[in-house]
Amino acid sequence: MSVSRLASVLPRAARHAPSALSRLILRPFSTSKARLARAIVYTENGDPASVLQALTIPDVTNKPPPSHAHVRFLLSPINPADINVIEGVYPSRPTKTDNLGTREGLGSEGHPVFVGGNEGLAQVVSVGEGVEALREGDWVVVTKQQSGTWMSERIVPVVDVAKVPRREALTEAQAATLTVNPPTAYNMLHDFVELKEGDWVVQNGANSAVGQAVIQIAAAKGIKTINLVRNRENLDELKQTLTKLGATHVLTYDELADKAVREKIKGWTKGKEIRLGGKETTMMARLLGKDAHLVSYGAMSKQPLSLPTSLFIFKNLTAHGFWQSQWYKTRSAEERDELMKTIVQLIAEKKLDTPEIEVVKIGKEESDTAASETIRGVFKALSEGKYGKKVLLKLD
Amino acid sequence: MSVSRLASVLPRAARHAPSALSRLILRPFSTSKARLARAIVYTENGDPASVLQALTIPDVTNKPPPSHAHVRFLLSPINPADINVIEGVYPSRPTKTDNLGTREGLGSEGHPVFVGGNEGLAQVVSVGEGVEALREGDWVVVTKQQSGTWMSERIVPVVDVAKVPRREALTEAQAATLTVNPPTAYNMLHDFVELKEGDWVVQNGANSAVGQAVIQIAAAKGIKTINLVRNRENLDELKQTLTKLGATHVLTYDELADKAVREKIKGWTKGKEIRLGGKETTMMARLLGKDAHLVSYGAMSKQPLSLPTSLFIFKNLTAHGFWQSQWYKTRSAEERDELMKTIVQLIAEKKLDTPEIEVVKIGKEESDTAASETIRGVFKALSEGKYGKKVLLKLD
Repeated sequence: MSVSRLASVLPRAARHAPSALSRLILRPFSTSKARLARAIVYTENGDPASVLQALTIPDVTNKPPPSHAHVRFLLSPINPADINVIEGVYPSRPTKTDNLGTREGLGSEGHPVFVGGNEGLAQVVSVGEGVEALREGDWVVVTKQQSGTWMSERIVPVVDVAKVPRREALTEAQAATLTVNPPTAYNMLHDFVELKEGDWVVQNGANSAVGQAVIQIAAAKGIKTINLVRNRENLDELKQTLTKLGATHVLTYDELADKAVREKIKGWTKGKEIRLGGKETTMMARLLGKDAHLVSYGAMSKQPLSLPTSLFIFKNLTAHGFWQSQWYKTRSAEERDELMKTIVQLIAEKKLDTPEIEVVKIGKEESDTAASETIRGVFKALSEGKYGKKVLLKLD
Repeated sequence: MSVSRLASVLPRAARHAPSALSRLILRPFSTSKARLARAIVYTENGDPASVLQALTIPDVTNKPPPSHAHVRFLLSPINPADINVIEGVYPSRPTKTDNLGTREGLGSEGHPVFVGGNEGLAQVVSVGEGVEALREGDWVVVTKQQSGTWMSERIVPVVDVAKVPRREALTEAQAATLTVNPPTAYNMLHDFVELKEGDWVVQNGANSAVGQAVIQIAAAKGIKTINLVRNRENLDELKQTLTKLGATHVLTYDELADKAVREKIKGWTKGKEIRLGGKETTMMARLLGKDAHLVSYGAMSKQPLSLPTSLFIFKNLTAHGFWQSQWYKTRSAEERDELMKTIVQLIAEKKLDTPEIEVVKIGKEESDTAASETIRGVFKALSEGKYGKKVLLKLD
C-alpha cells in the first residue's frame, strides 16, 4: 500500500494533520506496548464515515485527583444525534481536548481533538481523594453532555457521572442506554398531559429506540398506543414484536391513509379522544382529539413540522418540542436521579427493555488503521440504514 | 331584464328554490308595506358573492316572550371567518331557521335558511317578562356563536346576548367589534406566557384587525412588538400608522429575509429573548428565543403551520392554536363579562381603537334584488382584497 493510496482513504482532517497521518502510516499495524487505551476522535466536523479515526492513547496510570474518578468504559451507544454532532449540525457542541495523555500528535497540546459519543456506561477503577459516592467496581453513566464516551478509559470529574442504581438488575446494554432514549419516552409521556389508564397515545417512528420505550412505558401504565411504522418486507414480524412489547395497535402509514382504517380507529378508541401524539405529521394530527398535545423529539428526519393551521386552531392543539438534553440541563440533580431510578425500576420489573442491540467490538490487538476502518464502516452502514439494531461500541 | 338573465346571476340554490326566485323576479322593485325588516340569508354553502341574498321579512310586532328581547341591529361586522362559514369550511356551523316570520317562501316553515353573520351590535327595543338585566335602549352584543346578525331586527333569547358596559364611552363601531378581534388579541397576549413590561412579541399579519389590536394592547402594557407586514405601495404610510398605534418596529418580510436586519433585531431586543410569536412562519420562529410560545389564530391563509423541527426541539418552543370561539365556549359567563369589561376599559382610556372601518348601508327603500346585488358586490370586492378596511353592515 503506497502512502498516497492510504492518504486517499484518510479523512481530509487527518491529511492536514501531519502528525496523525504519519502515525497512521508509519505504524499501520503497530502493537507498541504503550498502546493501552483508545479513543474514537475527529478534528473537523463532517461525515462520520470520513472524519472519525481511532487513536491510541496512553493508559491512565496516575491516581485520579480529588473529586475525580478513573473509569473504564464498558459500552458506549451510538445514538442518531451523535451523527449530527459529528456533522456539526447539532446544537450541543463538544469542546476539543488536548488532554488525552499523548505526548505529541493528536490529543496532545496544540493538537486538540473531539472525542465522539455522548452516552456511555463505565466501571470505576479508582477514585480520588474526597470521593465518597463512588467506589471501585461501581457502574456509572456519563451525565455531562457531549463529554466523549467512545474511548476505553478516562479520568472524569465525579460530578460528570451518575452511579447506576440497582446494578444487579441490569444488563450492560440496559445500563449503557439509560440516559437518552428511555428518559425521552418517559418524559414525553409525563411532562405534557396527565395521562390516565385507558387514555390513547399515537406515535410515529414507533420502531425506533424511543418508540419502543414509549410502547413499553405506556403499556406499563395501562395507556393505549397506536403505533405507526413504515411499510417493509418483514412487516408482520415487526407488528408481532411491537405488539409483544405492549403496542395496542401497529399500523403502516399506507394503512392510515385509508379512510376505512381511520374509521376503524374511532371504533378502537371508542370515541375517546387521542390525547398525545409523537412527531407530527398532518395525517397523525387528524387522529388527535380536541385539546390534544403533540410532542416532537427527533429532528433527524430534517422534515419540518407541518400541520394544517385550521386543524391546529380548531382542535386547540398544542405542539411542543422536547429535547432530553435540555431537560437534564434545567432539572436538579435530585430530579435526574429520580428519573433514573424510575427507569431502572421499570427495567427491573421487566416492563422495559432495550431494543435489539449489536455490539461492535474494537479489539486491543487491532491497529488504529484497522480500528478506524471498522468504525467508519459502522457509520457508513448506519447512514445506509443497514442496522436495524441499536449499535453499542466496546473498546477493549 | 328577462327571467333567464336574472336567473343566471342568482345563486344556484335560489335557482332550485322556486319560491325565492319568483319573489325576486315578480317583485323586483316592490315597496310593499309589509317589508319592514330584512335579513341577509343563504340556503346552501358556497361563495358568498353567489349564494347570499337579501330577504325581506315581516317586522317584529309581538311582545317578546319571557326571557327574550326584541332587538334592532345597529351594526354587524363582516369578519373573515364569516366567509368560511358561508363556504361551509368553518368548524362552527350555523343552523337553519324557518322562523323569520315569513308566511311562505324562504324563512318560512319548510323553507329554512341560514342568516349570515356572527358578530353584531343591537339596541333593545323591548323585553319580555322576567328580564331584569336589560331595558329599552340598552346596547347588546350577540354572544351566541353563528346565530345570525346580518339582519335588521329580531327576537333573541336574553342568554344569547350581553349588555355592552359603559355604552357612553364607545362608538357604534367600537361596540360592534367588541367580541371577536380585540379579545383574540387580548387572550393571545395573556393566556400563554406571562408577559412583563419590556418583554418582546413578534407577530405577522400585523395590519389585520387582530394585529392592530395586538399592537395597542401590548403598547398599553409596555410590551414591545416587532410587526411584520407584506410589502406594498403605501408602505411608509402603513408603517407610520402602526407606529402611531404603538408598534415598536414594523418590518416587511423582505426586510426580515436580510441577515443584517435580523442582527439589528438582536440589537433592538438587547439580547432579551422574544417570548411570544403570532401566526407561524419559519422566518419568525428563527427570531424567537428559547422556551418561546407561538400562537396561531387565523386559518384564513390556508397555509399549513410549518416549522423546522430542529428549531422547534432545540429552542424548546411550544406552538398553540387559539380560537376565540372555543374560548367563549369553555369559559364562564363571569369570565366573558370580565374580558368585555377589560376591552371596554382599554377603549375608554383611548388605548385601543377599531381599525379603519367602512359601513355598508342597505337602505330601507332598496329592493331585495338591489340589496342582494349590493351585498354580493361587497363580498366580491372582499375576495379580491379591495377593502383595506373592516366592513360593517347596517341594515336599515
